[in-house]
Amino acid sequence: MDLILLIDILGTIAFAISGVLMAMNKRLDPFGILIIAFVAAIGGGTLRDILINAPVVWMLNLTYVYVVFGTTILAVVFRKRLTYIKRSLFLFDTIGIAFYTIVGVEKGIAAGFPPLICIALGTINACFGGVIRDILCNEIPIIFRKEIYATACIVGGSAYFILLQTPLQSDFVVVISFVSVMIVRLLAIYFNLSLPSVYSKKEIE
Amino acid sequence: MDLILLIDILGTIAFAISGVLMAMNKRLDPFGILIIAFVAAIGGGTLRDILINAPVVWMLNLTYVYVVFGTTILAVVFRKRLTYIKRSLFLFDTIGIAFYTIVGVEKGIAAGFPPLICIALGTINACFGGVIRDILCNEIPIIFRKEIYATACIVGGSAYFILLQTPLQSDFVVVISFVSVMIVRLLAIYFNLSLPSVYSKKEIE
Amino acid sequence: MDLILLIDILGTIAFAISGVLMAMNKRLDPFGILIIAFVAAIGGGTLRDILINAPVVWMLNLTYVYVVFGTTILAVVFRKRLTYIKRSLFLFDTIGIAFYTIVGVEKGIAAGFPPLICIALGTINACFGGVIRDILCNEIPIIFRKEIYATACIVGGSAYFILLQTPLQSDFVVVISFVSVMIVRLLAIYFNLSLPSVYSKKEIE
Repeated sequence: MDLILLIDILGTIAFAISGVLMAMNKRLDPFGILIIAFVAAIGGGTLRDILINAPVVWMLNLTYVYVVFGTTILAVVFRKRLTYIKRSLFLFDTIGIAFYTIVGVEKGIAAGFPPLICIALGTINACFGGVIRDILCNEIPIIFRKEIYATACIVGGSAYFILLQTPLQSDFVVVISFVSVMIVRLLAIYFNLSLPSVYSKKEIE
Repeated sequence: MDLILLIDILGTIAFAISGVLMAMNKRLDPFGILIIAFVAAIGGGTLRDILINAPVVWMLNLTYVYVVFGTTILAVVFRKRLTYIKRSLFLFDTIGIAFYTIVGVEKGIAAGFPPLICIALGTINACFGGVIRDILCNEIPIIFRKEIYATACIVGGSAYFILLQTPLQSDFVVVISFVSVMIVRLLAIYFNLSLPSVYSKKEIE
Repeated sequence: MDLILLIDILGTIAFAISGVLMAMNKRLDPFGILIIAFVAAIGGGTLRDILINAPVVWMLNLTYVYVVFGTTILAVVFRKRLTYIKRSLFLFDTIGIAFYTIVGVEKGIAAGFPPLICIALGTINACFGGVIRDILCNEIPIIFRKEIYATACIVGGSAYFILLQTPLQSDFVVVISFVSVMIVRLLAIYFNLSLPSVYSKKEIE
């Protein structure tokens, strides 16, 4: 229980910092920085809840609001030190997308949606905070352009449903799916992988 | 019944291809292309369902997901051939907006909204997938800038409610409204019509 | 009752005109101008209603639709005269954000949300029409970049909950909170205040 809360908070922190960095890069004012941090941290969950017609989680549980608030202030004040914890941040982010993928998948199952939609909900939960963050900052969302990020979530979500067909206990299903998101993401970064390009050389020139 | 399903699928295909083309134009990666295709195809219906607080259709009926998936793969592989079927695509798109306009209007009526709101829902259903597609690709939505597109939907939606006042059978009301969207759209393209400009020459310079 | 309706309409007019001006600045066509005016006027309330899972107000009460329609036509026709009423417009806008802040806060309270979320709902109600307007016009939202605008709403929303702890009558609580939004906004414009910058000189260069 406590471990789950810790993971949730670490993910929220990593996502909020990604928002702070993007907002400061665009030279937004303090209110703008705060909003982009919020959107990055809770946008994916908000879209998930609206799509499945459930109450929006951060409106009922203020933990997220406090965490984003505190993270934003600390990130702005210590922004020059953020490079020192770059690795930890990357790890938090990886833990975060793995966690939110599973949460999205399980909320989809609980609401009675078919597996394909649950995988989509997991991916939306993990990735669309970043999409809305980028849109508000007038950028084409980075996950549509490069890096294996959403793909890791899709792999993990698919693993979940494949493992459900096996006699594995549900706890193991969760842990293995969670870890598979992390492994795909970490391998992609380590080997600097992207999705194969669909463009011919001629088209790119 | 089968005719309605066919029209729905043709519209979905046309909208998905519009997304693929836009995404490839922006050099997005395969995941980005897929998401933009989805958003173009199902974004309008999603916004409609959220506004009327109904379950989101593509989350319950996987047909749309399969059609968009298959269309995206085929469109990417055969992208050089897409120019050969440009005319068919344009026709599918025109059939699509006519169909989705009527669907939106009828969902609005079923949910008890006044005619003006039902016409807005029909227009949103037909046009806002394209709006979200353009926003995600960092463009001002094309339907706000040129071409008579949304206007055709508004005309068709208005025709629906005018015809409801006549002794015409409801089937005829649907067919005539449907055809009127298509006619306005086809005439606009054939004669290269736009909405009259509200800007004076001086303002445009 | 009638005063409240008047304030609501003045706010809607001011917001719709902000949309018309932005859309004409981007040289949108008449349909685009109308949609941006609508979004600026009713976008904040729509997001508020979707977040609290309530029916969307403008879909049930056509007053807003008529007001935006009329305002848009008049604003386009008399656009050269708009500079003459710039001051009135600014006042309407200030009245508008004060009003929508209180409306958002009270809807949040009625739906049982905690104070912090109610203040957020008030701010969203007052400010996010402008955010969606800017996004659709491919700009980073102005309230994230400069001016004290959202901050006035946050101050007013906070005042509301602080005053609720006092023995003041609820009518006074509303009026004082309303006025405090206006005062913060008017002072900010009069003294040309912005939020303090979080960037060092070096970062800005």
